[in-house]
Amino acid sequence: MEEIQLIESLQNPRVKNAVKLRKGNVRKQTGTTLVEGYRELLRATESGWRFKELYICPELFIDPGSEKLAKEIHNSGIATFHCTKAVFQKISYRDTPDGLMALSPLVGKKLHELELPPNPLLLIAEDLEKPGNLGTILRTADAAGVDAVIACDHKTDLSNPNVIRSSIGTLFFIPIAEAGSEETLDWLKQNQIKTIAAVPRAEKEYTQVDLRGGTAIIVGAEDTGLSPFWKTQSNTQVSIPMLGRNDSLNVSTAAAIILYEAVRQRRNSVEKNRIRVNTH
Amino acid sequence: MEEIQLIESLQNPRVKNAVKLRKGNVRKQTGTTLVEGYRELLRATESGWRFKELYICPELFIDPGSEKLAKEIHNSGIATFHCTKAVFQKISYRDTPDGLMALSPLVGKKLHELELPPNPLLLIAEDLEKPGNLGTILRTADAAGVDAVIACDHKTDLSNPNVIRSSIGTLFFIPIAEAGSEETLDWLKQNQIKTIAAVPRAEKEYTQVDLRGGTAIIVGAEDTGLSPFWKTQSNTQVSIPMLGRNDSLNVSTAAAIILYEAVRQRRNSVEKNRIRVNTH
Repeated sequence: MEEIQLIESLQNPRVKNAVKLRKGNVRKQTGTTLVEGYRELLRATESGWRFKELYICPELFIDPGSEKLAKEIHNSGIATFHCTKAVFQKISYRDTPDGLMALSPLVGKKLHELELPPNPLLLIAEDLEKPGNLGTILRTADAAGVDAVIACDHKTDLSNPNVIRSSIGTLFFIPIAEAGSEETLDWLKQNQIKTIAAVPRAEKEYTQVDLRGGTAIIVGAEDTGLSPFWKTQSNTQVSIPMLGRNDSLNVSTAAAIILYEAVRQRRNSVEKNRIRVNTH
Repeated sequence: MEEIQLIESLQNPRVKNAVKLRKGNVRKQTGTTLVEGYRELLRATESGWRFKELYICPELFIDPGSEKLAKEIHNSGIATFHCTKAVFQKISYRDTPDGLMALSPLVGKKLHELELPPNPLLLIAEDLEKPGNLGTILRTADAAGVDAVIACDHKTDLSNPNVIRSSIGTLFFIPIAEAGSEETLDWLKQNQIKTIAAVPRAEKEYTQVDLRGGTAIIVGAEDTGLSPFWKTQSNTQVSIPMLGRNDSLNVSTAAAIILYEAVRQRRNSVEKNRIRVNTH
């Protein structure tokens, strides 16, 4: 096991390197992002995520589990650096750093890297901008047992530290890919996955469509909705009934409603199959 | 019609009065709150909401409809005051005021003021703190055709200007009441409304329960969940299946999923009745 090195100088090249990773183009060039905070590092570690390097400042630890987690990551063979308070505060992007930060490979996969079970349930999020919405959607996708989330033509860099934070680490649980819309549609067709686009005022309601079998649910940017591409190229457009006076729902709310209808249909159908087996 | 008075002095008693309304206890004592911004005032006006006084600063107008809206409110008999830029900036609670602000009666009703249709669908939100969550919930409740929202033992003052803002004015569309939990339960019982509490890991899933007929769905604070009172006093506890690794959903997401299951069941049952009528 490597020893833990001490970093005392603000001029240390590793410090400069970490600060540079706040820029999206540097993250892209180096294939590296920053993951900061106890909760985020814990969830990533629980999911078997491999970091590149670990930076700690025990004087800043807040959570009682911090030392144990730092040891666990270090003991798994990750090069670890002990920073002085001043150094850690320089590399941290938080107001109140908690003494834990890691350099990590980027989060998004390529489409061909996704491994799908039979009859997968996928969520395609087109062109979302707000890290908060993306975070809530990832949390809901995890809860609904979604097999993969694909961010299409996204304006948000998935590996943006604020997206990682707002997902409460869910980014490390569920397979998530980044791809262009056309590429994604081709891949869905190859995999015989039907495409269901959420479109306000579409004639069919989301409950009137079979969401069992391989299904991708596609939601778009809150202000502008889905692009014409997905509206015209999807197999089916569905709407959520709007019974009041507002004409739109928050995008993460809309995604949750349709995903859980898919869950309901799929569990119902399992239930029926079970009964069928039992009565024979 | 009263003439529009000009306010030029920062020492004007009306200016001091408006500034004081930022304090919750002053709002309570005076039964008055502030509603600021074109969108909020428009939606309130469209809903027939009566303001107490209108404050305008045409030099600050941003939206092209501002002048028309100001005239409409003034012409409906509301005392109107034209403020200088400096005065308006003093009474505004926004970084970029858009020249429209109104003094308004408080938003929440009392339980006995709610008028319910047969088989109402209600949403009870206990103890929510974040204005953003409450705003999203109100938007979803409007979309799902909820007949009333009741805020129980709330930490958030419904008439807090930030709640009004985050609801995008939905507060003015749907009947919303504030009440204590015990009082609310008594009132629900009197009205023969069954109570369905959202509780993580409850044995019954939300899709296994009849949500037709008079139904109140109860959701609680995100971090602590529902209080023991609602857990024990509700007719039924329901859970949302969590198929991934997270153990909770955002409270506004959970409310949306259960509300739209109620919508599905209710519309299905209308559909069946229609078919029954047609075939006879």
